[in-house]
Amino acid sequence: MVKVNENYLKLKAGYLFPEIAKRVQLHSQKINPSDLIKLGIGDVTQPLPKACIKAMNESLNEMSTIKGFKGYGPEQGYSWLREKISRNDFAARGCEIEPDEIFVSDGSKCDTSNILDILGNDNQIAVTDPVYPVYVDSNVMTGRTGNASDDGVYEGLTYIPINEENDFKPEIPTKRLDVIYLCFPNNPTGATLSRNEMRKWVDYAIENNSLIFFDAAYEAYIQDTDVPHSIYEIDGARNCAIEFRSFSKNAGFTGVRCAYTVIPKSLTGITHEGEKIDLWSLWNRRQSTKFNGVSYIVQRGAEAVYSQEGKNEVQNLVDFYMNNAEIMINRLKNAGFNVYGGVNAPYVWLKVPDNMSSWDFFDFLLEKSNVVGTPGSGFGLAGEGYFRLSAFNSLENVTDAMERIINI
Amino acid sequence: MVKVNENYLKLKAGYLFPEIAKRVQLHSQKINPSDLIKLGIGDVTQPLPKACIKAMNESLNEMSTIKGFKGYGPEQGYSWLREKISRNDFAARGCEIEPDEIFVSDGSKCDTSNILDILGNDNQIAVTDPVYPVYVDSNVMTGRTGNASDDGVYEGLTYIPINEENDFKPEIPTKRLDVIYLCFPNNPTGATLSRNEMRKWVDYAIENNSLIFFDAAYEAYIQDTDVPHSIYEIDGARNCAIEFRSFSKNAGFTGVRCAYTVIPKSLTGITHEGEKIDLWSLWNRRQSTKFNGVSYIVQRGAEAVYSQEGKNEVQNLVDFYMNNAEIMINRLKNAGFNVYGGVNAPYVWLKVPDNMSSWDFFDFLLEKSNVVGTPGSGFGLAGEGYFRLSAFNSLENVTDAMERIINI
Repeated sequence: MVKVNENYLKLKAGYLFPEIAKRVQLHSQKINPSDLIKLGIGDVTQPLPKACIKAMNESLNEMSTIKGFKGYGPEQGYSWLREKISRNDFAARGCEIEPDEIFVSDGSKCDTSNILDILGNDNQIAVTDPVYPVYVDSNVMTGRTGNASDDGVYEGLTYIPINEENDFKPEIPTKRLDVIYLCFPNNPTGATLSRNEMRKWVDYAIENNSLIFFDAAYEAYIQDTDVPHSIYEIDGARNCAIEFRSFSKNAGFTGVRCAYTVIPKSLTGITHEGEKIDLWSLWNRRQSTKFNGVSYIVQRGAEAVYSQEGKNEVQNLVDFYMNNAEIMINRLKNAGFNVYGGVNAPYVWLKVPDNMSSWDFFDFLLEKSNVVGTPGSGFGLAGEGYFRLSAFNSLENVTDAMERIINI
Repeated sequence: MVKVNENYLKLKAGYLFPEIAKRVQLHSQKINPSDLIKLGIGDVTQPLPKACIKAMNESLNEMSTIKGFKGYGPEQGYSWLREKISRNDFAARGCEIEPDEIFVSDGSKCDTSNILDILGNDNQIAVTDPVYPVYVDSNVMTGRTGNASDDGVYEGLTYIPINEENDFKPEIPTKRLDVIYLCFPNNPTGATLSRNEMRKWVDYAIENNSLIFFDAAYEAYIQDTDVPHSIYEIDGARNCAIEFRSFSKNAGFTGVRCAYTVIPKSLTGITHEGEKIDLWSLWNRRQSTKFNGVSYIVQRGAEAVYSQEGKNEVQNLVDFYMNNAEIMINRLKNAGFNVYGGVNAPYVWLKVPDNMSSWDFFDFLLEKSNVVGTPGSGFGLAGEGYFRLSAFNSLENVTDAMERIINI
């Protein structure tokens, strides 16, 4: 009989968000579903920018004619999109990233897990804790960890805590690590790294020949000028970092699906015999063989994000959600809650009151106020005792949800 | 330093189609590019069905309003699409495939390679030869093979030849195999399996506890009533087969990106300790963790394939390309070529004349006639001496290309 990949059996429970969905669905049967306010999953709620709609409409017109029809595109993305990304997201910030170092994809969730394909199984991997669960689970599924303890900590994986004690700044490791996942602005805590703090990580990586997986999915929400939008704003990062970017949270593409990954040509890994191999070639081969590019229609939509109209609309979307975040922080602080994040990120990271567990607080909040959040322990052991609230909702719902939380 | 996945270094040359693209680009610099006729890569050329365009336009309207906006969808695909697939592609042919056994994805290339994620590395894998290169390369990349010989045959992989000698029907193996890839109508040979021949494979798989990966990407081109469109038309296949389907070749979605994979809940694999594990749960977990669903816009387009208007338009597209295939076969046969396929598939499989190698014939044809095909050896050792011509082009180009080939 066919043998299964037994690493899957090490996984603890379901992936976080399906588990939340299950509990919410169960609760919904007891209430009027319209009473429910969802601040759980980090999913945008505002319509797509008009510039993107217009560009996608035009691409549909093309696809309905023989002359304009597009079949298979380049697996790496169309050059016109890669060029706009290079110019707007990197050159404009003084970063030197060539168009062909940019790989367009259908999502950062895919990229941050698929990237492991090109690495050996014997690397020392580190994640921050709490952490986006996909980083951990994709390592488990590919056999890069041992079993989990009862509290969900996997053997063989290094966890770098970020919490109140260290002001949500991960400490530079004292030992050598091969791969470190860093997501800043951070999901779920909303914390950021300043230019100096990020430089320390780049210096560490270069000194230790480590590779940083830098997830910048939330860069559009950065308000402070001292917080880099890209790790390539730091000298040397081209030699030690892969960056993941997405159109999900800036232009609201969670249902449209477009993202990209930057692999500088200067990045290398090594074989057991000591031969240096450039990672760009490996990823290029991976994508050519196992991926077939992003929908032409979607890529035209993504391109429009870089038009002047698109930029203005994205800015309005960001302002809209950040206004929500500000309201959330102010109301919760005034009511005596300890809250973090929400300044350079659309997430508010709440300290759960009364020493409740975060899943207990999830159930309690759902039961008493019909508000859905995300239990911090779903992001890892160090997330226990915290709770994530997302600013992705209407102003009315956010204001209403705060009233309800404050009054339970 | 970070260790790379050294299995990638076992890969021979580039992936076939990028290699063709490179040679074509080089040649294009010497000629008027409009003189080139591409019958190489199996890429459709006709516009999208109007029904799909209309549905996608409507979905864009929805996405531009707060009420109609869709964020993250289910990783497995929207239920309205899965239900239409279940009803039209399976129930209508007497196959019992539930909507939740259907996983919508962005492409069969992704699915047929990603499916290996859920299997152990110690399965005996077989492919037909010639074969769609992705099956082989994805096994190499995940460490399921040894090194390749000089002629590109990988150690540890079983090759089942399909060629003139066996009338392009793969013979049932005499030894036990864990996983067998079958693609029928076949890419690249255009061959098919009759109901009886397919039954023998299902019987073999059940008797040997094997798993069949059945790639039915070209089912829309089947003309003979004795050729099953789905492996689930054969009793018992629910216990031994995963089927891959795509909207690329029927509705022309190569640039739009939508496909699906069927994993019956009755399929099981085994752990080393002998525990049975259902494959549906593993794939569901894989997709939930490493994938984020297909664009809402694209799924609405795929749904329209099942409207009456959509079905009519798909039929017209198929008829159009199959008329091309008929012209190709007739002209080439009349000119004395040995040709196969082209009756239930949009590919004509040509025996290369004068004992030329298939890459030599590729270069010769390109140089002398500006016609691009695909060298058979690109699909494997048993493809040497053959050449694939695709019927995906305009009637004018196909007719013109045949004239040129006949007259070189």
